Amino acid sequence: MPFRLGQIASEIKAELKGDPDLQISSLATIETAEPGDLSYVASRKFERLVEKARASALIVYPGLQSAEHSLLIVENPYLGFAMAMRMFYRAFSTVVPGVEKTAIISEDVEIPDDCYIGHNVVISKGLSIGNGVEIHAGAFIGEDVIIGDKCRIFQNATIRERVIIGANVVVYPNAVIGSDGFGYCWDGSSHVKIPQAGTVVIEDDVEIGAGTTIDRATLGETVIGRGTIIDNLVQIAHNCKIGPYSVICAQVGLAGSTELGRKVTLAGQVGLAGHLKIGDGAIIEAQSGVPANVPPGAVQFGTPSRDVYLAHKIEAILSRLPDYVKRIKKLESYFDKDG
Amino acid sequence: MPFRLGQIASEIKAELKGDPDLQISSLATIETAEPGDLSYVASRKFERLVEKARASALIVYPGLQSAEHSLLIVENPYLGFAMAMRMFYRAFSTVVPGVEKTAIISEDVEIPDDCYIGHNVVISKGLSIGNGVEIHAGAFIGEDVIIGDKCRIFQNATIRERVIIGANVVVYPNAVIGSDGFGYCWDGSSHVKIPQAGTVVIEDDVEIGAGTTIDRATLGETVIGRGTIIDNLVQIAHNCKIGPYSVICAQVGLAGSTELGRKVTLAGQVGLAGHLKIGDGAIIEAQSGVPANVPPGAVQFGTPSRDVYLAHKIEAILSRLPDYVKRIKKLESYFDKDG
Amino acid sequence: MPFRLGQIASEIKAELKGDPDLQISSLATIETAEPGDLSYVASRKFERLVEKARASALIVYPGLQSAEHSLLIVENPYLGFAMAMRMFYRAFSTVVPGVEKTAIISEDVEIPDDCYIGHNVVISKGLSIGNGVEIHAGAFIGEDVIIGDKCRIFQNATIRERVIIGANVVVYPNAVIGSDGFGYCWDGSSHVKIPQAGTVVIEDDVEIGAGTTIDRATLGETVIGRGTIIDNLVQIAHNCKIGPYSVICAQVGLAGSTELGRKVTLAGQVGLAGHLKIGDGAIIEAQSGVPANVPPGAVQFGTPSRDVYLAHKIEAILSRLPDYVKRIKKLESYFDKDG
Repeated sequence: MPFRLGQIASEIKAELKGDPDLQISSLATIETAEPGDLSYVASRKFERLVEKARASALIVYPGLQSAEHSLLIVENPYLGFAMAMRMFYRAFSTVVPGVEKTAIISEDVEIPDDCYIGHNVVISKGLSIGNGVEIHAGAFIGEDVIIGDKCRIFQNATIRERVIIGANVVVYPNAVIGSDGFGYCWDGSSHVKIPQAGTVVIEDDVEIGAGTTIDRATLGETVIGRGTIIDNLVQIAHNCKIGPYSVICAQVGLAGSTELGRKVTLAGQVGLAGHLKIGDGAIIEAQSGVPANVPPGAVQFGTPSRDVYLAHKIEAILSRLPDYVKRIKKLESYFDKDG
Repeated sequence: MPFRLGQIASEIKAELKGDPDLQISSLATIETAEPGDLSYVASRKFERLVEKARASALIVYPGLQSAEHSLLIVENPYLGFAMAMRMFYRAFSTVVPGVEKTAIISEDVEIPDDCYIGHNVVISKGLSIGNGVEIHAGAFIGEDVIIGDKCRIFQNATIRERVIIGANVVVYPNAVIGSDGFGYCWDGSSHVKIPQAGTVVIEDDVEIGAGTTIDRATLGETVIGRGTIIDNLVQIAHNCKIGPYSVICAQVGLAGSTELGRKVTLAGQVGLAGHLKIGDGAIIEAQSGVPANVPPGAVQFGTPSRDVYLAHKIEAILSRLPDYVKRIKKLESYFDKDG
Repeated sequence: MPFRLGQIASEIKAELKGDPDLQISSLATIETAEPGDLSYVASRKFERLVEKARASALIVYPGLQSAEHSLLIVENPYLGFAMAMRMFYRAFSTVVPGVEKTAIISEDVEIPDDCYIGHNVVISKGLSIGNGVEIHAGAFIGEDVIIGDKCRIFQNATIRERVIIGANVVVYPNAVIGSDGFGYCWDGSSHVKIPQAGTVVIEDDVEIGAGTTIDRATLGETVIGRGTIIDNLVQIAHNCKIGPYSVICAQVGLAGSTELGRKVTLAGQVGLAGHLKIGDGAIIEAQSGVPANVPPGAVQFGTPSRDVYLAHKIEAILSRLPDYVKRIKKLESYFDKDG
C-alpha cells in the first residue's frame, strides 16, 4: 500500500523538497533502500552514505543537501522515520475485529464489537474490557481483570486475577503479569509462603516485553507508571513502583518494593536491590548492580554501582593495575637497596 | 470474610491483649491500614509508626506497647503476619474442583474429584496425579508425568515427559520443567546434539517462579530438593542437584551438574559455573559469578566471587583507587627529585 | 529396545574389542552404570573409575585398556557417546505423525502426512511447512510463517508472523520468535513506538532454548546462522546477526544490531552492547559485559570485558589489593619519618 510523498510529509510534519506525487512503496535503512523506498539520515556519521543511497526520498535534518533525492526535512529525522513507519504499519495491519470460535469467554463478560479475541484465549469471569482491544491466541485473563481501551495482549501471555491495565498497553508474548511475589518467612524449619494478596496496576501507554514477569504485591499494588517501556525477560518483583516514562531494558531485575522515579533508564541486565528509591532521570548503565538509593539525575555504573565518572576512572586504572603493581615493587626496591 | 481477633490469635498462636471479639476485615501494612485492619510491626525501625497507625490491631513482638491498639504478641511478628495472611487467603480462594470442558485429558488418566483442571489444559497419557491438585488454563503435562497431592500448576506452564513432582509443589505461569539440557558435542564441523534422556525430580513443598526453566538431565535426574523456593526467570541446567530449603532469587543461572547443599541462598542474578559444589548454608550475594566450589557457611560476593569480607574491602579500596594512584605518583616524584 | 554392541560400533564408527553380540540395554555415566549398560571415558581424570565400573562396555580413546569391559575405541569418546545416545533416543521417540483434533489450522494450510500437530496448536494463514515437522501442544504460528523440514516446535512456543525457519530447527517450550524489537523514539513528552516491520530468519540446524526471546528486526531481518545453538532465557534483540555454529549460553543478552561472526562462544549471562561486531571464534567468558567490538579469536572476560589474560591478572591483583594498600602506606611512612 504505497503513499504519496506529500501524504507522508503531512503526516510527519516535514518540509518537502521534491515531488509530492512521488510514490513511496516501502521504508528501508539507507544501506538497503531501493528506488521507491523512503529512508532517513539521523546523524552526521551516516551523511557519507547519502551520495550512493538508492532510496527515492530521505528524511533529513535541516541543512543536509542531496541533489539525487527528494527530501523530507524535520528537526528529528529518527522521530520522523518512526512516524512514517507507523503510517505504513497501520496500513499493513491485518487484525480484523471479532471473536474466534475457540475463544473461551466467561458468560458474564461482554466483548465490544471492535475487539479481537484470538483462538484458545481464556477469559475468566469479571473482566472489564475497553474498546478496540486485541487479545491474541492462547493468552489467559484471570478473574476480575480490568483492561483499558486499545490494549494488545499477545500470544500465550498470562494476566492473573485482579490485575488492572490502563489504555494502549501492549503485553508481548509469554509475558506474565500478576504472578505471586517471592515472599516467604523462615519458621525455623521451612519457608512459610506469605500469600500475595495484592495486585498489579499497569498505567496507560505501557509496553511489556516478551517473557517479562511482573509480580503482584503482597498487599497493595505493584505499579508500572504511564508511558514506561519494558523490554524482554525483565523481572519486576512485588510492590515495586515504576515511575512514568521510564525505560527498562532486557533482563533487568528489580527486587521487592524498589521505587523508580520519572524517566529513569535501566540498561540491559541491571539489577536493583529491594526497598530502594531511584531518583527521577537517573541512568544506570548496563549490568550494574545497585545496592543503595540513587539521587535524581545520577548516572551510575558497576557492581556495586558508583557515579559513572568515578566508575569509568576506576576501570581505566584497573587496566593498568599490573603496571601500578610493578611501580610499587620498584619503589620498595629503593628501600631494599637502602636497607 | 472477616475473622474475630480471638480466632486469629489462636491460628497464629499469639498472646492476645485486647478484645477477642473485635472483627478484623483485612490485613494491611502499618502505613496503609485502616480501622478494621490487622497490621504488624516486625522490627524496631517501624516502632515510630505505631502511634499513628490506624489499624485496629497489631501483631507485635514481646515488649512492644500500644494503648491505641489490640495486640497479638508473638516471637516473630513477620511469621505471625504470614500465618494470618494464609488464613485470609484460604477464605478468599475461589478455585472450585472440577474439570473444565475444554481440558484435553488422555483417556487412560483418571482425575480425582477434588482436583481442578482448567481450560485448554493438555494432559498426555500416563499421568499419575494426586489429590487436590490444580492445573490451570493452558498448562501442558507430558507423558508419564507424576504429580503429587495438592500441587498447583499455573497457566501456560509446560511440564515435559517423565518429570516427577512431589506434593505441595507450585509451578507459576509460563515456567518450563523438563526441557532438554544444553548438551552438544562438536564433531569438527557442527554441534551434535546429545539427546537428553534423563528427567527432572521436584521434591515436596518446592515453589518454581514464573518463566523459570529447569532442564532435564542428560542421564539420571536434575533434582530440586524439598522445600526449596525458586523465583522468576531462573535457569537451572541439566543434572543440577539443589539441596533442600534453598532460596534461589530471580534471574539466577546454574550451569550443568552444579550441586547446592542444604539451605543455600543465591541472591538475584547470580551465576554459577558448571560441576561445582556449593556447601550447606552458603550465601552468594547478588550478581556474583561463582567459578569454584564454595565451602559450607561461606558468604561470597563478586565476579569471580570472593569471601564477602575481602570482596567488600576490595570494593572500598576501588572507590579510592584514583587517590592511591596519586599517592604512588607522589612517592615516585620523591625519587625523580632525588634522581 | 536393546542394541547389539556390534550395531553400536558400526553406528558410531568405533573399533570393537569384545563381543559384538553383547546386548546393550541402556546408556549411563561411568559412576551409575549397571551390567548391560554402555558408558564412556572421555578424559584422563575418569580413568581411575574404569576398574570399578559395572558397565558391560565402555567407549574409550585409543590406548585405554580394561580387561573387565568390552571396548568401543574412537578418537573422541564424548562424541561417540553422543552418537550412541542418538541411536537409543530415536528408538524411544514416541511422536506419531498426525494432527490432533483440537489443533486449529487455517483452511489454506496443508499439513504433510508425516508431520505431527499437537493439541491446541494455532496455525495462522499462509504457513509453508516442510516434511516431518512436529509442532507441539499450545504452540502458536503466526501468518505467513515458513517452517522447513524436520523442525520441532515445542509446547507453548510463540512464532509470530512472517518468521522464516530453516530445516532441522528446534524451538523449545515457551520461546518467543519474532516479537517486536525494543525500538522507541522520545518525542519530548513520550516514547513513540517504532513499528517493527522486519522479521526473523532462523537458518538450518539451529536450536533455541526454553523461554528464549528473539525479536524481529525494525526493517530487514534478525538472523540466526546455521548450526548455532542457543540455551534458555536468552534475549536477542532486533536486527542482530548471529553467525553460524555459534554457542550462546543461558541468560545471555544481545542489544540491537550486534553481529556475531562464525563459531563465537558467549558463556552464561554475558551481555553485549548494541551495534557491535564480534569476530569469528571469539570467546566471551561468563557474566562479561562487552562494550566494544571484539577481534576474531579474542578471549575476553569482565565488565567491561578485557583480554582474558589481562582480566585474570587484574583479578589476581584485586585479591591482594588490601596488601598493596598497606605497602603504599608503608612506603609513605618512610617519608613521614624522614619529614
